[in-house]
Amino acid sequence: MSAKIRIAIAGYGNLGRGVELALGQNPDMELVAVFSRRAPESVQLVSAQVPVYALDTIEQYKDQIDVLILCGGSKDDLPHQGPQLAQWFNTIDSFDTHAAIPDYFAAVDSVAQATQHTNIIAVGWDPGLFSINRLMGEAVLPQGATYTFWGKGLSQGHSDAVRRIAGVKAGVQYTLPLEDAVNRVRAGEFPELTTREKHRRECFVVLEDGADAAQVHEAIVTMPNYFADYDTTVHFIDLAELERDHGAMPHGGFVIRSGTSGNNTKQTVEYSLALGSNPEFTSSVLVAYARAAYRLAQQGQFGAKTVFDVAPGLLSPKTAADLRKELL
Amino acid sequence: MSAKIRIAIAGYGNLGRGVELALGQNPDMELVAVFSRRAPESVQLVSAQVPVYALDTIEQYKDQIDVLILCGGSKDDLPHQGPQLAQWFNTIDSFDTHAAIPDYFAAVDSVAQATQHTNIIAVGWDPGLFSINRLMGEAVLPQGATYTFWGKGLSQGHSDAVRRIAGVKAGVQYTLPLEDAVNRVRAGEFPELTTREKHRRECFVVLEDGADAAQVHEAIVTMPNYFADYDTTVHFIDLAELERDHGAMPHGGFVIRSGTSGNNTKQTVEYSLALGSNPEFTSSVLVAYARAAYRLAQQGQFGAKTVFDVAPGLLSPKTAADLRKELL
Repeated sequence: MSAKIRIAIAGYGNLGRGVELALGQNPDMELVAVFSRRAPESVQLVSAQVPVYALDTIEQYKDQIDVLILCGGSKDDLPHQGPQLAQWFNTIDSFDTHAAIPDYFAAVDSVAQATQHTNIIAVGWDPGLFSINRLMGEAVLPQGATYTFWGKGLSQGHSDAVRRIAGVKAGVQYTLPLEDAVNRVRAGEFPELTTREKHRRECFVVLEDGADAAQVHEAIVTMPNYFADYDTTVHFIDLAELERDHGAMPHGGFVIRSGTSGNNTKQTVEYSLALGSNPEFTSSVLVAYARAAYRLAQQGQFGAKTVFDVAPGLLSPKTAADLRKELL
Repeated sequence: MSAKIRIAIAGYGNLGRGVELALGQNPDMELVAVFSRRAPESVQLVSAQVPVYALDTIEQYKDQIDVLILCGGSKDDLPHQGPQLAQWFNTIDSFDTHAAIPDYFAAVDSVAQATQHTNIIAVGWDPGLFSINRLMGEAVLPQGATYTFWGKGLSQGHSDAVRRIAGVKAGVQYTLPLEDAVNRVRAGEFPELTTREKHRRECFVVLEDGADAAQVHEAIVTMPNYFADYDTTVHFIDLAELERDHGAMPHGGFVIRSGTSGNNTKQTVEYSLALGSNPEFTSSVLVAYARAAYRLAQQGQFGAKTVFDVAPGLLSPKTAADLRKELL
């Protein structure tokens, strides 16, 4: 077997930990370093025996890393890290601010083309695997409609919004798809669904001492953008229950393409994920695409890319001949 | 808009008709001709106003066709047609004899490389879209197991086997996944499933006058390879009921990757198809991959290919920038 693909992680939170664990499942790759903005000596890896370096020293390691996996956030980290690090590295990131993707792609691409790197942006499951299924669904069934449902899943943004309300000590928010809507889509009814008809929201909230439950409830369910357009259920629980029952980060959802072929024949394609841990699954996807980035760079295919530009075979450690024999 | 991609069909049965209909849903492509081994004047197209030519005259049209879609069968037609037609055309086919794929690929590839054509083999849903999901499931979740279930669907091969039995006038066979097995897989139990535990078979049979139902039943359920390893139900019906209720060709199934990430966290990825018409859906997939073959040929990427070699973006009529903006 040839030398392993040398991977490094930039940013060590839930996603970075997930990448570390996922690399342990992929014997053709090895973690060689972790970079963090925190003091390196304060960063405790899960189990890998590799050095942690300060992120601002990363340039000096550019010849020792085949692919750098960016595990920072889409709001504050990636918009500047993505283009900056593309000058020295092939990268993978999970940029997920959908509306900002065209600008982010352009910023990364101009650096990548100039410095001859391969940089796959917006990798994960949405954007990512769900996007592939949206694309393929409409390519195969041009007459039809595509529906994306999320959940049951913990929403970080909505949980943060709940926790910012006065009187809330702690809490989490789950997004749930409405089964009736999903079933109507699966049945090929092509329903026009409002926001309220597709998903509902459920909050588990721990109040500060003396806080008014009715006021907090009202503040949540009427919050514009986050909750006002949904049917929202609020459960008040104590901290022990929150810690016991709501510590995981499950997520998932469905992409359904409902279409017709020929003489109005119903055809339905569905892709669904049921994830015990959202960050661990996202990390697993990032690692598979790191293998693809390495291969594309070897082939001289430089520039910013997305999952739409990556042939499935590049994701697997197996040879093309083995894939045809075993999996086709 | 640039000129349309010029498509021709070789072989005009269920699949060829499906391709004709699917092309009507794709305004960037146009059907320019149909080729048949039958007398051209005897071939009635569904609605396209294009010429039908004898298949053995096809070489003279090689400069008028961008992609030829081979709609013959895997047993008798494609093994020789695939390599032969690859010398003159970019092609798409639905070769589905899994065990023979490596040899077929090699035969097509040597012609394609020598004559600079792009020939995507084994396109459809299995092999095809299911294969992609088997590959991506194990690439993203290397620790786990992949399960493929088929049905509910009409099986052509098993229906033929039933009809060959003495005393059978007509009949169809459906393959059905066993719900209990599917649910155990979805629950992440990683079950070891025997053939009998994954699928059951259901036959609807019309007897010849005077035939012995008990004998026919016994001949079906004990037939080696086809039925002996399954629980099989046989229903005897009359011809009117067969024609009324069993004329469609539904199919479908599931590919489920059940895996664990990180510290034994359960993660499940499922892809499922519910198809009103198996040949029409397969045809729709062939047409989307014809677009990809055209583009790969334009890029000079010649040789035999499979769905594993085709980036998703090549399947869509939209530009890469529009795809990133609208679907990522």
